[in-house]
Amino acid sequence: MVRQFSRHRRAPAERTGGQRPRLYGRHAVLAALANPDRTVKHLWGTRDALGQLDVPPVMPISYCDVTDLARLIPRDAPHQGLVVEVEPLDDVWLGDVLQSEVDADSRRPIIVLDQVTDPHNIGAVLRSAAAFDAACIVTQDRHSPPESGVIAKAASGALEDVPWVRVVNLARALDEIAEAGWWRIGLDGDTDTALGDVLDGSRVALVLGAEGDGMRPNTIEHCDQIARLPISPRMESLNISNAAAIALYAVATARPR
Amino acid sequence: MVRQFSRHRRAPAERTGGQRPRLYGRHAVLAALANPDRTVKHLWGTRDALGQLDVPPVMPISYCDVTDLARLIPRDAPHQGLVVEVEPLDDVWLGDVLQSEVDADSRRPIIVLDQVTDPHNIGAVLRSAAAFDAACIVTQDRHSPPESGVIAKAASGALEDVPWVRVVNLARALDEIAEAGWWRIGLDGDTDTALGDVLDGSRVALVLGAEGDGMRPNTIEHCDQIARLPISPRMESLNISNAAAIALYAVATARPR
Repeated sequence: MVRQFSRHRRAPAERTGGQRPRLYGRHAVLAALANPDRTVKHLWGTRDALGQLDVPPVMPISYCDVTDLARLIPRDAPHQGLVVEVEPLDDVWLGDVLQSEVDADSRRPIIVLDQVTDPHNIGAVLRSAAAFDAACIVTQDRHSPPESGVIAKAASGALEDVPWVRVVNLARALDEIAEAGWWRIGLDGDTDTALGDVLDGSRVALVLGAEGDGMRPNTIEHCDQIARLPISPRMESLNISNAAAIALYAVATARPR
Repeated sequence: MVRQFSRHRRAPAERTGGQRPRLYGRHAVLAALANPDRTVKHLWGTRDALGQLDVPPVMPISYCDVTDLARLIPRDAPHQGLVVEVEPLDDVWLGDVLQSEVDADSRRPIIVLDQVTDPHNIGAVLRSAAAFDAACIVTQDRHSPPESGVIAKAASGALEDVPWVRVVNLARALDEIAEAGWWRIGLDGDTDTALGDVLDGSRVALVLGAEGDGMRPNTIEHCDQIARLPISPRMESLNISNAAAIALYAVATARPR
């Protein structure tokens, strides 16, 4: 179930340096076209790809061949015949998401990313967040990449669907999340507590740090519990999007005690 | 625990089109240097990155600046100051891996990939396979990409550590896996059976198809059980490496009944 929030406009240039993001790939473009909160400025596509779409008549469309399409986006980007130029989505506020979840008495998890900046990983986390019906993902504005084709492609449509809340101060956001009734679990290898052993069906916020550095100390201090995924000493860590996917699965399959 | 197998040489040119793979990134390069089965032909690095390494004196080394390093590998590849040119690893045979696992009375899972060709995904699956101590990954030779910098970077060292078995015929390999005592579970959304409900601590082979198309019908016929991950109708599918990571976690945390 997808909930509606009021979104809050700020100048798009503020987040994307004045450039409008270009999204590409079939799932990403179809989801953008279907999203009532998304302003699509232009759609380019091959005759073949556009022929299969039902596009609103007011939309500026250009038919192009594959070579022209490829020039619109970074080299080797897998566009699958479709590119759109869009306005970035307006901001979603954390308080609005939390209130809406509490009003609905939902158990949906929240994903909090500390210093995760790789757009492939953020896109993949959005996709898993949609797959496991998360309420939102939260990142710190200063460390978040802007919306981009890479994120949208990896998210496979979920960029349009999962609220992505950018906050000024992650520690303060974690406090707000706790006050609203979520149990904050930070994932870190440096503990003996397994994630599966601390899940009891409560509402949880899963907090993940960047690969290599992990969560910042101040983020760890704002978690209620630190837990680990049971990985072998053969490997230092998991890819961040894989860790998020596993944690979401663990939450989804946890049984109340 | 890492087991040793005899590896079987074939002309490297057969798999990589005559070009030696170049691996880059700190984890990938360090793992290649540490792997006794890996022949490293040349090592390039920045003074800074090489200064931290303990390299065998017989190894040809070139000190370069960052610009020269970047010219050795595809554009924007994140090399972290280190590049090696290597021979592809010699072949590992499925029968050897199975025998070694059976001899050790191991419960380690096997990952079988049907038509998964994206090198980022294969690399990420190798990394998760190492993290959850899988016995090997199996792909069909004709549909497998050659070893490459992209795979090695995404695998974060696991390309050197997890046996990657390439077979001529995947259906025959699945038969061999079953005869050796593994329960073959194919992951597919088109079933009501949840993966978590069919795991009972037995030895399992997890079979995953490519995104979009899924497993081929003949692959499905060679599974003992089809099971799904419990994802929301909001999302059609998971990223393949995320699905593999979740399945490996589910196996690792399954309790015997």
